[in-house]
Amino acid sequence: MILLLGASGYIGHAFKEALQVRGEEFRTLSRSQLDYTRFEALYPFLKDHRPSFIVNAAGYTGKPNVDACETAKADTLLGNTLFPQALAHACAMLDIPWGHVSSGCIFVGCQVATENGWVTEKDMTRPEVRALAKTSPAKLRGFDETMTPNFSFRDPPCSFYSGTKALGEEVIRDVGNNYIWRLRIPFDEIDNQRNYLSKILRYAKTYDNLNSLSHRGDFVTACLDMWLDRVPFGTYNVTNPGFVSTGEVLAMIKAILKPSRDFVFWKDDAEFYRQGAVALRSNCIMDTTKLLAAGIRMRPVHAAIESALSNWQPGA
Amino acid sequence: MILLLGASGYIGHAFKEALQVRGEEFRTLSRSQLDYTRFEALYPFLKDHRPSFIVNAAGYTGKPNVDACETAKADTLLGNTLFPQALAHACAMLDIPWGHVSSGCIFVGCQVATENGWVTEKDMTRPEVRALAKTSPAKLRGFDETMTPNFSFRDPPCSFYSGTKALGEEVIRDVGNNYIWRLRIPFDEIDNQRNYLSKILRYAKTYDNLNSLSHRGDFVTACLDMWLDRVPFGTYNVTNPGFVSTGEVLAMIKAILKPSRDFVFWKDDAEFYRQGAVALRSNCIMDTTKLLAAGIRMRPVHAAIESALSNWQPGA
Repeated sequence: MILLLGASGYIGHAFKEALQVRGEEFRTLSRSQLDYTRFEALYPFLKDHRPSFIVNAAGYTGKPNVDACETAKADTLLGNTLFPQALAHACAMLDIPWGHVSSGCIFVGCQVATENGWVTEKDMTRPEVRALAKTSPAKLRGFDETMTPNFSFRDPPCSFYSGTKALGEEVIRDVGNNYIWRLRIPFDEIDNQRNYLSKILRYAKTYDNLNSLSHRGDFVTACLDMWLDRVPFGTYNVTNPGFVSTGEVLAMIKAILKPSRDFVFWKDDAEFYRQGAVALRSNCIMDTTKLLAAGIRMRPVHAAIESALSNWQPGA
Repeated sequence: MILLLGASGYIGHAFKEALQVRGEEFRTLSRSQLDYTRFEALYPFLKDHRPSFIVNAAGYTGKPNVDACETAKADTLLGNTLFPQALAHACAMLDIPWGHVSSGCIFVGCQVATENGWVTEKDMTRPEVRALAKTSPAKLRGFDETMTPNFSFRDPPCSFYSGTKALGEEVIRDVGNNYIWRLRIPFDEIDNQRNYLSKILRYAKTYDNLNSLSHRGDFVTACLDMWLDRVPFGTYNVTNPGFVSTGEVLAMIKAILKPSRDFVFWKDDAEFYRQGAVALRSNCIMDTTKLLAAGIRMRPVHAAIESALSNWQPGA
């Protein structure tokens, strides 16, 4: 029996649907049923029920967005760092393999090809970077799983959310057998306040940058495939290969959804952080070589976005 | 065998000396010997060595002071929250009792007697509070162990240090058998940069407020007595009963040490936080009823300060 934690969340819900579709035996557990964030409740439960695998899709992302994590520090730490650590300890003791939904938002920027090799560039709004993205995208590549997070408490500045996610990875890595699945900016065809495409459609102004993204269904399919195919444990960037600019996404939205409204970009970072955001945001490109080499298939990001928009299900 | 963690620190060193004096069988473990903050190292070590009791005097306090914790967020969390949680889990699994050096700095202010009963007053620099402290000290009392920290991530504002200490208590409480020993502003007769009396002697300006304090030797004696006397596990404020104003401490310093220098107070909070500090500081009074009721003896704070100054050992 697979145990799914966080089934009521945006990603957890997709895991639940995917497990149902696959006919896997699973159960969910909510904090109202059992406060599993308390080790003294978690450990006996796992010992009694002995799940074959655990999916931890619980986490604290902040509502309506990560800015909320800057003030809800205790809950952010509990959800993204302390609970994952507790789960790692309990699973290690009971020899239960598990997977943890982490985030690619612990990185900022990308790697840029230079005469001296690949160099990290944190500011992808620079004209040189944007020019490369258009003319020579192969000269930009993402962060791979061997690289140390550069948008974290150990490499500030960062958002409080990102700091807790990076520290969460640090305390569960190599503790028992687990997957660290790095999600990035989820989207799919179903209008939802957590869907990146819905956000772009609704935002008063749009932040223009380059990013790797994760199609929600592709993400959970990849994660479950990893466990069912017994891919080696460890950290994986689970994003759709490639990267897109917000401008490209907007162009696809206009071409496919033909919305009546106009879209405006924030003039620059100064305007965005003065009016649109409190916490620093991560914009980054992820490398998916390890994921693909493990035999996991993911559609390229442009194809996944086009598919989501072509099958768009508007909300109420 | 008692295991002492953090023996090289200011409080850990005093534990080590007290254990030696008492002739207790003990061993220390440093992070250079074994990175015990990693659960996969900690758990097998404890399983092999099976200490009868563990003293966790390891923690991250920041150097030269708590302001450093505002930037070293990962290490502060690791030392004060994540490691205590890991230790709690390992000890619960192995049924090892232990004690954790926590801090009273998760509170700010005191309780003031009013017509409507006891009311929390966070600002003890208010003239009404200072007047009561002088004329009717019984109308002020400290926070007891049933009260919820009010200088924490759950009750901001707080310093990052205090936030991590309060959250550390939260994640270890009721997990196995442990003592949470709350220390507050340690001092003793030995000149040291961590000694409150040394700080007052060295500070360019002094912050005037009311506080409960812990004599370092009295603190470790009380903590060890609790374990050796099998006092019930739980949270205890381990401070010298009562409270003092910085002005009273200064008066004792002048009377006993007769220093040649003059002492100046910060004009007000605005000046202190503009020039003297980054992180908010906790000034508070702790209630020691529970400690004393458990049969642990602690000298009143004025007697402990007078004794320390009378036996003063100046540093190099």
